[in-house]
Amino acid sequence: MKKKKKKVNAAILIIGNEILSGRTQDKNVAFISKWLNLNCGITTSEVRIIPDVEKTIIKSIKTLSKKFNYVFTTGGIGPTHDDITAKSISKAFKMKYGFHKEAYKILENYYGKEKFNDGRKKMAKMPIKSKLIYNPSSAAPGFITKNVLSLPGVPSILNSMIENCKKYLVKGSKVHSKTVNLFTVESHISKNLEILQKNYKKEVDIGSYPFFRLGKIGVSIVSRSTSKKILENVNRDLIKIIKNKKIEILKV
Amino acid sequence: MKKKKKKVNAAILIIGNEILSGRTQDKNVAFISKWLNLNCGITTSEVRIIPDVEKTIIKSIKTLSKKFNYVFTTGGIGPTHDDITAKSISKAFKMKYGFHKEAYKILENYYGKEKFNDGRKKMAKMPIKSKLIYNPSSAAPGFITKNVLSLPGVPSILNSMIENCKKYLVKGSKVHSKTVNLFTVESHISKNLEILQKNYKKEVDIGSYPFFRLGKIGVSIVSRSTSKKILENVNRDLIKIIKNKKIEILKV
Repeated sequence: MKKKKKKVNAAILIIGNEILSGRTQDKNVAFISKWLNLNCGITTSEVRIIPDVEKTIIKSIKTLSKKFNYVFTTGGIGPTHDDITAKSISKAFKMKYGFHKEAYKILENYYGKEKFNDGRKKMAKMPIKSKLIYNPSSAAPGFITKNVLSLPGVPSILNSMIENCKKYLVKGSKVHSKTVNLFTVESHISKNLEILQKNYKKEVDIGSYPFFRLGKIGVSIVSRSTSKKILENVNRDLIKIIKNKKIEILKV
Repeated sequence: MKKKKKKVNAAILIIGNEILSGRTQDKNVAFISKWLNLNCGITTSEVRIIPDVEKTIIKSIKTLSKKFNYVFTTGGIGPTHDDITAKSISKAFKMKYGFHKEAYKILENYYGKEKFNDGRKKMAKMPIKSKLIYNPSSAAPGFITKNVLSLPGVPSILNSMIENCKKYLVKGSKVHSKTVNLFTVESHISKNLEILQKNYKKEVDIGSYPFFRLGKIGVSIVSRSTSKKILENVNRDLIKIIKNKKIEILKV
């Protein structure tokens, strides 16, 4: 019998007024979500973007950590007054907040004793029993508290740290996907896609996304499944529909 | 006495597997959030990104519509089987789902009777007592059900429709912001910013965001308030701090 991996899911919690206000375009959701699926077989099932407000952070952490296998937080772990993620997580889990010994040492080494000022010391404060997520680009570590992994908001730093999350994560089944880009309109194939989806029930997710390219309207049909075999079957059926309808495929 | 506008807030609910999986980079959050603040004085207080799953959509709609003055949904109102936003909202509010008379007429006129196929007709299905949000670019209207405004996911179409949401919205106080970009590191000014924030309490939100530009590290200090006068005062105090610390300002 083929071993069947279980479904593992995650939520992403983006903490920061700058994302909510539209001042900063978030790039972490797409990056983390793709990385989780590709490297760990973990599916992102929900994202929330919330302000730098302690009560809101605590409530979101409590809700999401119960509901999903993992929660990734981004933002709010820097040296300034608006960085309140670590303290809020401590409160959410009723865990002691203070200097994390190893984090303190890492930062003291990195800056040198003289330049290790109060702002920088703040970055060593977190739930003291957390495990660290090492930061190869700017030293200040992220941390994992229960099933919550806390990373910084700056994408280049986050990206450099993500591999160090791997050892804390239970792996699940990777979702494979297949995209076919068609020069047609959605309503021309919507009936066929509906039947195709029904034939494969929950084994595959078929999505349809309009695009504009080369001055023409098109539709991307994206099929997603944990089984490559099923994806092949869906694709074979889809190609039949396309041929019957004489639809032009965009080759990319 | 100066009239005081009340605080009006909104949530944005992004519905779509393609955003959650990281396949598509969301651009609607930043656009809607900026537009709401600038044009209506409405603050975006939470964003959720969820999959095309009826149960999840219904639950999110119920929660967010109770918690915030308005909810904007994006995605899931097209002609294909994975477009289930309209039906889910009907279920959330226990309202009758079916052909909306005016929407049906608009679409029939747009496509012509012969080309008005089942897929296209589906776009006229929604809670039948909704009010329409007209769509100048591709006809298929959005709709408002109670305090929930439903828009399409394709950014160019959404952008063309947003002005038509205005008449349904109660206006609040616009949040003004002032940004000063400094060539320094956060920890060098974190103590001063903390005191500055405490001095102004809840009248202003001061955020600090690292950047990398021209090969140098910097910090953007963003102050946000509904009062321009208070922002000027904050800025005056901030300039004092910068001069005392001999920090270079990046002029943009």
